[in-house]
Amino acid sequence: MTLSLDEAAETLAAQPFSTLVGARLTAFTDGAATLTIPIRQELLQQHGFVHGGVLSYAADNALTFAAGSVLGPSIVTSGFSITYLRPAMGTALRAEATAVSSGRRQALCRCEIYADTENGPVLCAAAQGTASVIDLGRTGASA
Amino acid sequence: MTLSLDEAAETLAAQPFSTLVGARLTAFTDGAATLTIPIRQELLQQHGFVHGGVLSYAADNALTFAAGSVLGPSIVTSGFSITYLRPAMGTALRAEATAVSSGRRQALCRCEIYADTENGPVLCAAAQGTASVIDLGRTGASA
Amino acid sequence: MTLSLDEAAETLAAQPFSTLVGARLTAFTDGAATLTIPIRQELLQQHGFVHGGVLSYAADNALTFAAGSVLGPSIVTSGFSITYLRPAMGTALRAEATAVSSGRRQALCRCEIYADTENGPVLCAAAQGTASVIDLGRTGASA
Amino acid sequence: MTLSLDEAAETLAAQPFSTLVGARLTAFTDGAATLTIPIRQELLQQHGFVHGGVLSYAADNALTFAAGSVLGPSIVTSGFSITYLRPAMGTALRAEATAVSSGRRQALCRCEIYADTENGPVLCAAAQGTASVIDLGRTGASA
Repeated sequence: MTLSLDEAAETLAAQPFSTLVGARLTAFTDGAATLTIPIRQELLQQHGFVHGGVLSYAADNALTFAAGSVLGPSIVTSGFSITYLRPAMGTALRAEATAVSSGRRQALCRCEIYADTENGPVLCAAAQGTASVIDLGRTGASA
Repeated sequence: MTLSLDEAAETLAAQPFSTLVGARLTAFTDGAATLTIPIRQELLQQHGFVHGGVLSYAADNALTFAAGSVLGPSIVTSGFSITYLRPAMGTALRAEATAVSSGRRQALCRCEIYADTENGPVLCAAAQGTASVIDLGRTGASA
Repeated sequence: MTLSLDEAAETLAAQPFSTLVGARLTAFTDGAATLTIPIRQELLQQHGFVHGGVLSYAADNALTFAAGSVLGPSIVTSGFSITYLRPAMGTALRAEATAVSSGRRQALCRCEIYADTENGPVLCAAAQGTASVIDLGRTGASA
Repeated sequence: MTLSLDEAAETLAAQPFSTLVGARLTAFTDGAATLTIPIRQELLQQHGFVHGGVLSYAADNALTFAAGSVLGPSIVTSGFSITYLRPAMGTALRAEATAVSSGRRQALCRCEIYADTENGPVLCAAAQGTASVIDLGRTGASA
């Protein structure tokens, strides 16, 4: 039911938006997933920091992959909350998500987003969200 | 203190990530902002729907521009919650945000994200978040 | 399938905690519900304002009743986000919730919480949350 | 600047609503706080489970005390998100909150709420929220 790292990486590669952003799946175990996004000019906002929308993409997708590691691939993300803590800059973003609780049908996940800098990782945002198994005959939601 | 539509559109154009996504500011008044994003292949996930991360980007940025319309340009987004309601597909996303409450230093905004389809607009996600005026001498947060 | 005001008020009266808090259902229509809570000493925190936990209770329950007005009585609240805007004091709290979107199985609701004062109502908090129809054979969640 | 367990317990005891609910502070260290609430009839909803509003009160207040352990006593809670996972029943609720990130002025905290049952603790809800130091000359928010 659950996915291997290779299968999960294929799923990520099949998402055109993740390719546009440049996200890579750098860890995927039972209950955890890490997305890594090299920081480049196209991902910034007007002050030279990584755009908050990149961080929210990273949270959304890392949460979803962490949920998929325990629920299997047929899931939808119900939603999430994100809190921004510090401006993100440096060489790469790392979104580390873990499943805090999971049942047969739903998983609650949390995610920390770090910016890797020359002085080490800096925690830039934290998120919490849920994903659910898709019901047959039901129109689901996102990502 | 507040911005005109042209000034706000310049701010959006100065965000490389918004250019990468293809977002345009299509409404900007005192307390409200609308971002429109033409849907194209690069914004999708693996099932052919718009990626949840595009919706969360749209929520983040529409909330921030709605807050900026009442607080002025020197703000940071503190965070937001987003709930996904339906898969997004069609010709364009529209993220319509309004300021529900604002003081001198903080604004609470809400956002609805519609997918424009040949059968009319479909509500795909809803969000709520806050933005604050940047304190001098304080390191702030996102976008 | 949906409830009348009298049936909904009976449900509220059957909640011992709502009786302890002193909540009354003062409006209940298709897609909206209002809870009113007279402010008294026992609901305050150490500075003389209404405790944030009373506001979060009001949000939780108003959201749930608004969802129940469209989904029927067999629902569970999945969760919510609340933002506190101003200290609450005065004669009564009013939590006004509306269903923003609803399907067969889930409703997204929003809620504004006002404190009624001698100078009129003051918006003190705003919330957004979801409730779902209980699946048979599935262990659900809260209130 | 930070509080001792005894000072924090005095603050809790000075909250009339916390006395009404029956909350006790059972742990308080640098960056963490635990609230314990004996489950009794008055805290239930109509199906015999602890009311979601009690869980949200517990989240709000545990988050605030965890933030106070690093920021000092002059803080306001900005808001939080809570996800309900399972119905709460048993002998007591325990809300365990920790500060995930803190600066001079703001702390991000997370909280897990367990129901203590004869079969051990059951995770019933999880929350994430922020609290900020009160600015002089500024009207703040909640609890």
